[in-house]
Amino acid sequence: VRITDLGEFSLIDRLKQIVDTERSDIVVGIDDDAAVLTDHGDTLLLATVDSHVEQVHYLPYLSTPQQIGRRALVVNLSDIAAMGGYPQFALVSLALPKQTDVEWVEELYRGMQAEAGRHGVAIIGGNITSSPSGVCIDITLIGRVHRSHLLLRSGAKPGDLVLVTGHVGEAFAGLHLVFNPRLPVDPAIRTRLITRYIEPQARVAEAAAIARLQVATAMIDVSDGLSGDIGHICEKSGVGVRVWCNRLPVSSEARQVAEAMDTPFWQFALDGGDDYGLCFTAPAEAVDTIVTTVANETGTSISVIGEIVPAAEGRTLVLPDDQAIPLSTSAWQHFRVTENT
Amino acid sequence: VRITDLGEFSLIDRLKQIVDTERSDIVVGIDDDAAVLTDHGDTLLLATVDSHVEQVHYLPYLSTPQQIGRRALVVNLSDIAAMGGYPQFALVSLALPKQTDVEWVEELYRGMQAEAGRHGVAIIGGNITSSPSGVCIDITLIGRVHRSHLLLRSGAKPGDLVLVTGHVGEAFAGLHLVFNPRLPVDPAIRTRLITRYIEPQARVAEAAAIARLQVATAMIDVSDGLSGDIGHICEKSGVGVRVWCNRLPVSSEARQVAEAMDTPFWQFALDGGDDYGLCFTAPAEAVDTIVTTVANETGTSISVIGEIVPAAEGRTLVLPDDQAIPLSTSAWQHFRVTENT
Repeated sequence: VRITDLGEFSLIDRLKQIVDTERSDIVVGIDDDAAVLTDHGDTLLLATVDSHVEQVHYLPYLSTPQQIGRRALVVNLSDIAAMGGYPQFALVSLALPKQTDVEWVEELYRGMQAEAGRHGVAIIGGNITSSPSGVCIDITLIGRVHRSHLLLRSGAKPGDLVLVTGHVGEAFAGLHLVFNPRLPVDPAIRTRLITRYIEPQARVAEAAAIARLQVATAMIDVSDGLSGDIGHICEKSGVGVRVWCNRLPVSSEARQVAEAMDTPFWQFALDGGDDYGLCFTAPAEAVDTIVTTVANETGTSISVIGEIVPAAEGRTLVLPDDQAIPLSTSAWQHFRVTENT
Repeated sequence: VRITDLGEFSLIDRLKQIVDTERSDIVVGIDDDAAVLTDHGDTLLLATVDSHVEQVHYLPYLSTPQQIGRRALVVNLSDIAAMGGYPQFALVSLALPKQTDVEWVEELYRGMQAEAGRHGVAIIGGNITSSPSGVCIDITLIGRVHRSHLLLRSGAKPGDLVLVTGHVGEAFAGLHLVFNPRLPVDPAIRTRLITRYIEPQARVAEAAAIARLQVATAMIDVSDGLSGDIGHICEKSGVGVRVWCNRLPVSSEARQVAEAMDTPFWQFALDGGDDYGLCFTAPAEAVDTIVTTVANETGTSISVIGEIVPAAEGRTLVLPDDQAIPLSTSAWQHFRVTENT
């Protein structure tokens, strides 16, 4: 069997059978945005790794090396944030073609260091090796979380509401604009959305504010596509979900791209993951507090987009005309063509 | 400037200017086998990352996927061991061509898990992405060390002796046999030396025994070539060294390969790094205790191969005929052709 036939998540499921993570010092193994390890007292250690591969995760002609470096770190910052934790240390492993310019690597590092500095992260080491083909940037991020702030994928309960930070689908719209340069979209909007794709922001401050309130029940970062990421919460929490299309926070700019592509706006929102927003669940009575606190502390808006239901009710998407269809969990899988709903 | 013109270590020196590791929670940043971070009380946290790239670090036709997985972990275990620490958690990041067989990946993981299990390490997570070309395996290893057991590259003092574990140059001889299949060497020896290259052992138990005695002054794992690794100790400790060729522990099998290749045996020992032995320094009066303890606990022999001298006396190699020449620090650099002395 080729991995392209099996898909990324099925492959991970098979590999989980091989590794042994049943240990008293492991709180959560490979089932969440980051691994959770016992530390000392009420603090837990977090560790996560993510790759940025040329042509797969970034297009070298589209971004400066500083932007590539920043983005490579952002995807990791987002994972630590989604656990309710704070990032501390990064290890950077680079595989580089021999002909790479030293200045390019220095610029890449300047981008990483700038992003690291913004979030109090120190780059503590790494590795550089030659690559027979393109660039591969692997970053491991280590952080910590107070035990009472920890947010897993597995805590959602029927009756909870589903929330997201900011707008969804903007970076995805930007990526479409890169591949479809002739789409009739206003140039200023084009630039803004492509920048959202190239320069995503990790929602570290938003995640910290949510975690500190200790009312959210589950959290994940939106990296694989919102529908797929909600699917991860459902799977780990053993629940179903109902997502309301009309409540998805899609900006007028992203709607304009969707329209130009003859695609429903909600498809952009559900398929897009490159915004690196947060998706989380909380009891209805806690929503006002969360929305107000996050807005006050970070200026970021929070939207209620759905509700958690018992697993037996499945995962559904309520279309703008009130028709309910199955929520496709078409998470971006690196070994599969993205299935569009 | 291309990185191939600058070399790996000069590139790292330039990148060190960009990152900021002056923090109270960082004991050692990117200057040693692993980063050293404050933890709690007398325990320190260790973190290191290393890559295993197809064609660069391993030849797919030479090794089974289990062997490749084991070896990818061994290079990291060796780094944590060289700090005097114990390994705990591994994160595995894989970049794989889409056509990779699932069974191949499972076998790779079985190899990693077997090696991890031997050393009490749990594989706690990772990442899988598609690679446009070959396989890249990045492993981050997290461990801990008791503060009094920590061994850096920077503690060697004039008068200390230089010691190594086991034999040196065997894996390097094995690699030569791979590339020179017609060398007139006994088939049993050929198999044994090639196996030493394919299946290196991390000296975790040996390192622990040495660290526990608290008499060694500096330690490094021999991964870049013994002369280069001794050079790292000299550089970080601000000392010179005198290495005696006649004391280098080169097995008769490796000598046989060296002879068949018309190369001095000591060149194999000094250029070879793939054995993943340990090189360390200690005061002369501590040597007997170390040798006896390590032999009793692990069965591994320890050899004195040189002495630390003041920096002003430089780094010299005493040839079998007592002639002293400069010790070439021709550490294996991924972006340079290895310079042979």
